[in-house]
Amino acid sequence: MKALEEKITREGTVLSADILKVGNFLNQQLDVPFLMEMGREIARLYEGEGVTKILTIEASGIAIATAAAVHMQVPVVFAKKSRASTQTGGMYTASVHSFTHGNTYDAIVPESMLSADDRLLLIDDFLAHGAALCGLLSIVKQSGAHLCGCAIAIEKAFQGGGDKLRAEGVRIDSLACIASMSPTDGIVYR
Amino acid sequence: MKALEEKITREGTVLSADILKVGNFLNQQLDVPFLMEMGREIARLYEGEGVTKILTIEASGIAIATAAAVHMQVPVVFAKKSRASTQTGGMYTASVHSFTHGNTYDAIVPESMLSADDRLLLIDDFLAHGAALCGLLSIVKQSGAHLCGCAIAIEKAFQGGGDKLRAEGVRIDSLACIASMSPTDGIVYR
Repeated sequence: MKALEEKITREGTVLSADILKVGNFLNQQLDVPFLMEMGREIARLYEGEGVTKILTIEASGIAIATAAAVHMQVPVVFAKKSRASTQTGGMYTASVHSFTHGNTYDAIVPESMLSADDRLLLIDDFLAHGAALCGLLSIVKQSGAHLCGCAIAIEKAFQGGGDKLRAEGVRIDSLACIASMSPTDGIVYR
Repeated sequence: MKALEEKITREGTVLSADILKVGNFLNQQLDVPFLMEMGREIARLYEGEGVTKILTIEASGIAIATAAAVHMQVPVVFAKKSRASTQTGGMYTASVHSFTHGNTYDAIVPESMLSADDRLLLIDDFLAHGAALCGLLSIVKQSGAHLCGCAIAIEKAFQGGGDKLRAEGVRIDSLACIASMSPTDGIVYR
């Protein structure tokens, strides 16, 4: 998605060879009209796939998943990273290591929210090593639902998570795919 | 908002006199088409107020804030509950006690995302004791921005946070306002 690549180049900051900061439009400040354009593109990519539900993970995935859901007219379920006192019943869980926060947490989805009849689209803001996405894929497997694919806002291809999953047969669509980046030389897209 | 009251009564579960579970459409599974109707109502309530930005807090506030932002065509900023490695520069912070999770955390917003020129609308899914909202109000005060008001999906009025803030002169609009509730007798709206 050319408009996203241009926006990353214009408004993002490459902090290091690994870390891209896009908190001013995608991660903490949300450019909602632009997110709606990204959601429209995701809806176009998965048109005709019979998606019944979008699965994402808190917190940064929620806004883009919501934007896509507006266009696809389906519900969103997000995995939580901790269990609230209002949560009861059986849970699907998957252990996820966060390279950003340097910790490991359980991604949690109530069993009642996903079923074997669902056709799921996974959405997340970033795909780097693939840790969060692998956690969501484990939850999809536990639920018995059909996986239509994964739509990612920004893939950092040089960290390998996306291509590893593609080699396993998972459909992954990244709206922007970064081949390499550096604070001095900027971003090269794939 | 009558449609929300009816939805809570139909799809929510009163777990105790204090705890209402609406995870199947508002908190973890998101009924996005319905959230868009809630967002439309919030946009109507704040029409003409010159809102420049919506401020919310992760994670449950993000979806409804996004829905309102679609109608109002403004950005959303959400307070984070932990600091990521990509966050740099000065931060507004406020200590918040979560009655749901039984812990205390810092709500964090980068200083660069709010300015004294902003006219802010605060949005959250629940208002009970008002702890999260007071944290956001502290952040608004630190930023010097103008507060237009607070739009809440569900206020549990019997827990007092909303009326305490109204008495201090804060504008609060709740789409559904619960006077009392119990697992046996159901929900009484105000």
